[in-house]
Amino acid sequence: MDEIREGEIPLDIDPATMPADGHVVFIGRVRSPWLSRQTCPKNMRAARETGQAAELDPSRGARAGRGGGCRGSLFSWLVRWARKFILQNPRHAAEPSGTFALRSPARPNPIGLHVVRLVSLDHAGGRLRLEAVDLIDGTPILDIKPYFASADAVSDATIAERGTP
Amino acid sequence: MDEIREGEIPLDIDPATMPADGHVVFIGRVRSPWLSRQTCPKNMRAARETGQAAELDPSRGARAGRGGGCRGSLFSWLVRWARKFILQNPRHAAEPSGTFALRSPARPNPIGLHVVRLVSLDHAGGRLRLEAVDLIDGTPILDIKPYFASADAVSDATIAERGTP
Repeated sequence: MDEIREGEIPLDIDPATMPADGHVVFIGRVRSPWLSRQTCPKNMRAARETGQAAELDPSRGARAGRGGGCRGSLFSWLVRWARKFILQNPRHAAEPSGTFALRSPARPNPIGLHVVRLVSLDHAGGRLRLEAVDLIDGTPILDIKPYFASADAVSDATIAERGTP
Repeated sequence: MDEIREGEIPLDIDPATMPADGHVVFIGRVRSPWLSRQTCPKNMRAARETGQAAELDPSRGARAGRGGGCRGSLFSWLVRWARKFILQNPRHAAEPSGTFALRSPARPNPIGLHVVRLVSLDHAGGRLRLEAVDLIDGTPILDIKPYFASADAVSDATIAERGTP
């Protein structure tokens, strides 16, 4: 994961070795059908298209507070990836791009964002069933937030109607 | 911020004092007109309605890779809030809810999600101008991701059309 491709530029200091500005704790892990990077869908659209469900196996009280039948934003911790690239050259891309213009899992803070449908909660086991997810089995989870279209889905049309401030 | 309201339940161990499962580094800070919790809009919809712009003051190479004229998901680190609540009772709510059913900034990992419009990039200063943001001036930033409607905006209609897997 530390391979440097043509056109890629690392930061002067690797965030993986920088002093911490803050710390995270895992609240659970994903259980998914994807056992390797090769089989794992590349994004949530591709994951939904597989029709394969997934689960969250919560720890530390994550089971409290969510039922099924709604949408949520899942935050993952993408531990397997380099954190040092500011300019990177994904295999599918024609040329290098800035990390913050990409959804690449290689980022200074390796937090993934996955808008998921929460299908149901298994009250006995505490597992939360998801319609689909684009994460390898065992990936740690940091947070689950309710998804509100009014705040989280921004259409260009809405902005055009309001005009430029 | 450690006040416990009626019906609120803290975790057995406060995540703020747990050993780290991972660490974050700040990639920059927000510059906004909101200098206190009282004046800060409560969500992105309210922030957009103020018509007040904001900026990102990047460090550590965050200036690379983003221009203006597009949407992005901004990740903040909400340092001022308690991390220990699993059941909480926001002032606006009728009854306590699980943390993962709320957008409250008090969470085990205090990561905020803000879907913003990136208006322009000041190439000389490296500041990124935002249409609006619901964050207090000086809040640290962890990440900026491009927003893709195909992955990040899930409509119930789309899911209903596909049927249940």
